[in-house]
This record gives sequence, structure tokens and C-alpha cells, in this order.
Amino acid sequence: MHNFTWRGQTRMNADRIPDIIIGRLPVYLRALQRLSSKGIQTTSSQELGEIVGISAAQIRKDISQFGEFGKQGTGYSIPFLVERLQDILKVDRVWDVIVIGMGDIGHALARYNGFSNRGFRVTMVFDNDPSKIGQKVGEFEILDTSTLAEKVKLNKIKIAMLTVPAPAAQEISDQLVKAGIKAILNYAPINLTVPSNVRVQYIDPVAHLQRMTYYLD
Amino acid sequence: MHNFTWRGQTRMNADRIPDIIIGRLPVYLRALQRLSSKGIQTTSSQELGEIVGISAAQIRKDISQFGEFGKQGTGYSIPFLVERLQDILKVDRVWDVIVIGMGDIGHALARYNGFSNRGFRVTMVFDNDPSKIGQKVGEFEILDTSTLAEKVKLNKIKIAMLTVPAPAAQEISDQLVKAGIKAILNYAPINLTVPSNVRVQYIDPVAHLQRMTYYLD
Repeated sequence: MHNFTWRGQTRMNADRIPDIIIGRLPVYLRALQRLSSKGIQTTSSQELGEIVGISAAQIRKDISQFGEFGKQGTGYSIPFLVERLQDILKVDRVWDVIVIGMGDIGHALARYNGFSNRGFRVTMVFDNDPSKIGQKVGEFEILDTSTLAEKVKLNKIKIAMLTVPAPAAQEISDQLVKAGIKAILNYAPINLTVPSNVRVQYIDPVAHLQRMTYYLD
Repeated sequence: MHNFTWRGQTRMNADRIPDIIIGRLPVYLRALQRLSSKGIQTTSSQELGEIVGISAAQIRKDISQFGEFGKQGTGYSIPFLVERLQDILKVDRVWDVIVIGMGDIGHALARYNGFSNRGFRVTMVFDNDPSKIGQKVGEFEILDTSTLAEKVKLNKIKIAMLTVPAPAAQEISDQLVKAGIKAILNYAPINLTVPSNVRVQYIDPVAHLQRMTYYLD
């Protein structure tokens, strides 16, 4: 259906919207939901731009890819734009997500309360350490990683967050892909090799820090 | 000195290297260090490209911004390229970093052992909860956020990781900036407003997940 590579570097089909634009939509959605939670009903590309640090022109261009959303001079209806962005990003539903690796970050993700109103819920957590398997983390019992493939298939899970040590990450990723996972949020500080129909996003705080130190004296 | 905006959207000076390129350098460095740790001494833009999921041409173009690094046909010397990238990104030294907010993520960051060989060390951790202040997290004693400005100034800290709840993030950010912080890694799911000489990077797992669900069926 979609011909993007998971890396988001290439556009295979000129009709497709560049992944760089898709990557900005969650930022717009987050800011709009925050305005909405303050009871604000309308906004402009200028106001939104100041909040998210992106030019008003860029925001208008990005949003116009998906149709007409605002009238000249009246700005955007926040509830309408929120609904449309949720629809576009497919977070008008709730996705089941699993966590593999119950170290500090895995624990934090299992207990994070910021998923539920943004389209996700953690449903299972895994580790391969016998001393952790069967223990509770919040409402979850830690499951044995050896049962991962079977449970992913049975529950038709499409999304996994990977917080295992770097040397184990590629092997677990291979297992996940084989079991039907289509999207991996990878916290291990290594690049994963996956088929082109599987997407990976990376969270590496050190890479973000290094991107900033470049500019420091 | 540097005329980028912190958002990395605009290039104020044509001599400057676009922030999007700077953002890829930590990814190259991470992959090169991983090859190096396996005892590998040389690589090519093709090999590196396959690891990081970026085209060989793009990698050559990015790296050539900083001078001549490889000879046609012989590839890159990994130790040399690692050293140059560390130098460019200013992680040929060790930066002191503080953590504000000792919830699950703050704990994970305080205990994370992946900073030390990549240019950073956590030196202080803060919270404003009286029941947490004075408690130990690993080797750190949790300090009172009310002493933040004073300690940042005294120790000339330039970099902070912010893991406080969203409603508190902007106020703490203002305090940090006033005390001399120049780079903030923000885990709170809100956009921060900072002066143009301060840089912010964001870590929001939900935004990454939403960027992937767009492509799912």
C-alpha cells in the first residue's frame, strides 16, 4: 500500500507525502491538544508556529497536503484539526504496544501515563532475565521473552518498544519482525536492519545531546 | 558565533552547515564506534549507509562538508573519522549534564551507563518533592530544585535534561536559561520557548509512535 522506505529518506511514489512532513504532524497534534486542554477553540498558523518553532508558511504548507482546513482570516478550528490529524496519523483508535526489556527505561515506559490519550496502550512487557520474569511492574506481569513471537502473533500486535541492551537488539528485532511487528521504537543505541515494510524510529538521548554540543562553546 | 536558530529550521549564514546534517553526525559516529568496538579499522560510505539507512551519496556529501576524509577506493579510516566527528561534535571532551525531575525517566537517566564513553556525564540530579530530596539514586543524592539556579551557575553547567511534568516544564526551562544553561534535552511532551542562543531537543516516544502508525494498516 505505502511505498515509503522505513528510513523516510526516499519517496517511491510522487503521490506520497514526504515522511519529513508526517514527522511534523505529531508535533502539531501535541501542541493543538495542549491548546484544546486549555479551552482554546481556534488558532492560526502564526500562533501554532510560535509554539512549535516552525514557520507559519511551513505549517500551512504541511497541513494543506491533507485538504482545506482553515479559512483565510479565521484560522483553524482546533477540535476539527485535532480530529483530522488523529485520523491521518491513525490515532483515532488505540494501538496495543509491547515493551521488550524491563530495565529502567522499560519500567518507565510500562508505567508511563502519557500514552492513553494519544493513541496507544501498553498491553504486555517482556524480559529474558529469570529473576524478573513473573514479577509485577505496575499492572503488568513480566513475561518471558521466549514466548514473545507466540504472544505477538496471537494478539496481532503491530508495534513494539525495544529497550534491550545493544548486543541483543538485532536478534530480538528479527524475532519481532518474523512474528508480524510492523513498527519498532528502538531505545538500544544501534541501528536495526529490518525489511522495507517495517518501520523503525530511534530514541537515543546521547545523539540528541551531541547534536546540541556542536553549537556550544 | 553560530547563527543557527535553535530550531534548526533556518540557516542565517550560508557558511554554516545545515542542522539537518549536524543531526546525522551522531548517527554516523555511533555506528563507527560500534564497528570500531568490533575491531574493524576501515569502512566505506556504502557499508556505513547500509548500517544507518542513509544513502552512500548522502553520507559522502555530509562528511565532505568537514574536509577530506577518505581516498577513492580505500574507504574511510574508522579511528580517524571517529576522532574527527568527536572533534566536530565537541565530544572529544566530557560535558557535565544535570537531570531535573526524578520520576521513572529521571531515574533511568541518572543510572544510564551509556553516557560516559560518548561525551557526557550526569553530575547532579534534582527534584522538588520533599519526600525525594536527599534520597539516593545510584551515586547521586537528589537535590532540591530550589537550589538549581545557584548550582548551575556555580558549576558552570551548560546542559540539562528535563523530565518534569508538562505543566512545570516551561517554568523550569526559564530558570535554567537564566542560570546559564545553553542546551536542554526535554522529555516533557510540550514545546519550550527559549531564547535563540539556547538549543532544545525533544524526546517524545508518542510522537515517534504516531509517525509510524501513519503507515500501518
